[in-house]
Amino acid sequence: MILLLGASGYIGEAFAVELQRRKKVFLPLARAQLDYSRFDVLLDYLNAKQPAFVVNAAGYTGKPNVDACELDRAGTLAGNTLLPQTIAHACAAANIPWGHVSSGCIFSGAKISTNGDVRVEKDMTKPEFHALAEAKSPAILGFNEADPPNFSFRDQPCSFYSGTKALGEEAMTGLGQSYIWRLRIPFDEFDSKRNYLSKVQRYSKVYENVNSISHRADFVRACLDLWERRAPFGIYNVTNPGFVTTRHVVELIEKFLKPPRKFEFWRNDEEFYQVAAKTPRSNCVMDVSKLLAAGVKIRGVEEALEDSLKNWKPE
Amino acid sequence: MILLLGASGYIGEAFAVELQRRKKVFLPLARAQLDYSRFDVLLDYLNAKQPAFVVNAAGYTGKPNVDACELDRAGTLAGNTLLPQTIAHACAAANIPWGHVSSGCIFSGAKISTNGDVRVEKDMTKPEFHALAEAKSPAILGFNEADPPNFSFRDQPCSFYSGTKALGEEAMTGLGQSYIWRLRIPFDEFDSKRNYLSKVQRYSKVYENVNSISHRADFVRACLDLWERRAPFGIYNVTNPGFVTTRHVVELIEKFLKPPRKFEFWRNDEEFYQVAAKTPRSNCVMDVSKLLAAGVKIRGVEEALEDSLKNWKPE
Repeated sequence: MILLLGASGYIGEAFAVELQRRKKVFLPLARAQLDYSRFDVLLDYLNAKQPAFVVNAAGYTGKPNVDACELDRAGTLAGNTLLPQTIAHACAAANIPWGHVSSGCIFSGAKISTNGDVRVEKDMTKPEFHALAEAKSPAILGFNEADPPNFSFRDQPCSFYSGTKALGEEAMTGLGQSYIWRLRIPFDEFDSKRNYLSKVQRYSKVYENVNSISHRADFVRACLDLWERRAPFGIYNVTNPGFVTTRHVVELIEKFLKPPRKFEFWRNDEEFYQVAAKTPRSNCVMDVSKLLAAGVKIRGVEEALEDSLKNWKPE
Repeated sequence: MILLLGASGYIGEAFAVELQRRKKVFLPLARAQLDYSRFDVLLDYLNAKQPAFVVNAAGYTGKPNVDACELDRAGTLAGNTLLPQTIAHACAAANIPWGHVSSGCIFSGAKISTNGDVRVEKDMTKPEFHALAEAKSPAILGFNEADPPNFSFRDQPCSFYSGTKALGEEAMTGLGQSYIWRLRIPFDEFDSKRNYLSKVQRYSKVYENVNSISHRADFVRACLDLWERRAPFGIYNVTNPGFVTTRHVVELIEKFLKPPRKFEFWRNDEEFYQVAAKTPRSNCVMDVSKLLAAGVKIRGVEEALEDSLKNWKPE
């Protein structure tokens, strides 16, 4: 039996759908049913139910966006740092393997390869790097699992949200048997407040940047595949291979959905942060070689995006 | 056997002295000897050594002061929030009672009683409240253990340090058998960078405010007495009964130590925060009725202060 924590959330519900599709016996849990943030409660439950695997899809994301996490610091820390530590301790004590939905947002920018030299560029909005991204240049490399987070409390500035996610990874590392699955900007064909494709359509103006992103169903499939294949425990970046510029996403939306509105872009970072955002945003490119090397199949970002827009289901 | 975590710190070393004085068998541990911040390491150690009681005197205080915690957020959270949660989990799993050195700095101000009405006043530098404090007015009441922290991530503004200490208390509450001992501004007769009486002498200018404070040896004695008397587990404010104004502390220093310098005070909060401090400071009055009602004896703040200055040992 698989225990699914945070089953009612945006990612948790995708895990439930996929586990059902795979005809797996699973037990979906929401905090309202059992307060699994309490070590003693969770440990007793694990010992009683003896799940073969635990999925933690619970976490604290600000509503309507990450700026809200700056205000609710206690809630953000409790959901993204203290909770994974608690689950890690309980699963270690009960000797149960588990996986945690983390986030690629603990990185900023990309790695740029020039003449064999590789260096980190945190700001991909600079014209020269943006041009590389638009050209899908192979000089742009993603962060891999050996790279230390560069958008965290240990490498500031960062958003409070990102800081707590990075610290959540630290709090569970080296303890028991666990996967850290890094999601980035979830999207799919189902119109929703949490769907990146919906957000882009609803922003008053669009923030132009470069990102790796994760199709929601592709993400949960890859996570479960890692466990089913008994891939080595540890960190895995789980995005659709590749990266996209926001401008390209807008072009695809225009092509497939033909929305009546015209999209405008923030002139630059300065305008974006002055008008639309309070805390710095993570925009980054991820390397998924480790995931692919583990034998997990996942569509490229272009295919996943076009497929989502072709099958778009308005809310 | 008593296990003492953080034995090499300012408060840990006082616990060691007092345990020796009481001829108790104890095992002092520093992080350099055993990484007790790791759940599995600590749990194995507890199961192997089976201590009767664990004292956690480890924590992260900024050096030279609390402003440093604003920069090292990961270290501050790891030391003051994740560590107590880890110890709480390990002690619960091993069924071992323990005590944690927390801080009264999760409060700001005092409670003011007027005509039977009691309300919280966060800023005791206001002239009318300061006059009450100088007159040692019984209208000034301390915060008790039932009062929610009002200088924490849940009640901002707060310093990052205070936020992590308050969240550390939350992370261990309601779990296993534990004491939360709230220390406030430690002092004693031994000149030291951590000693409040040394700090006041070394500040370029003094920040005038109202505080309850804890004599270091009195504090550890009271903590150990709670355990030896088997007082009910839970939160205890552990300061010397009463409160002092910084101006009064300066007068006592002048009277007993006759320093060659003249003390100056920051004109007001504005000047203090502009010139000397980055993050807001906690200044507060604590109520120790619960400690006293548990049968623990502790000197009044005036006696503890005068005694420290009479027996002053320069570094």
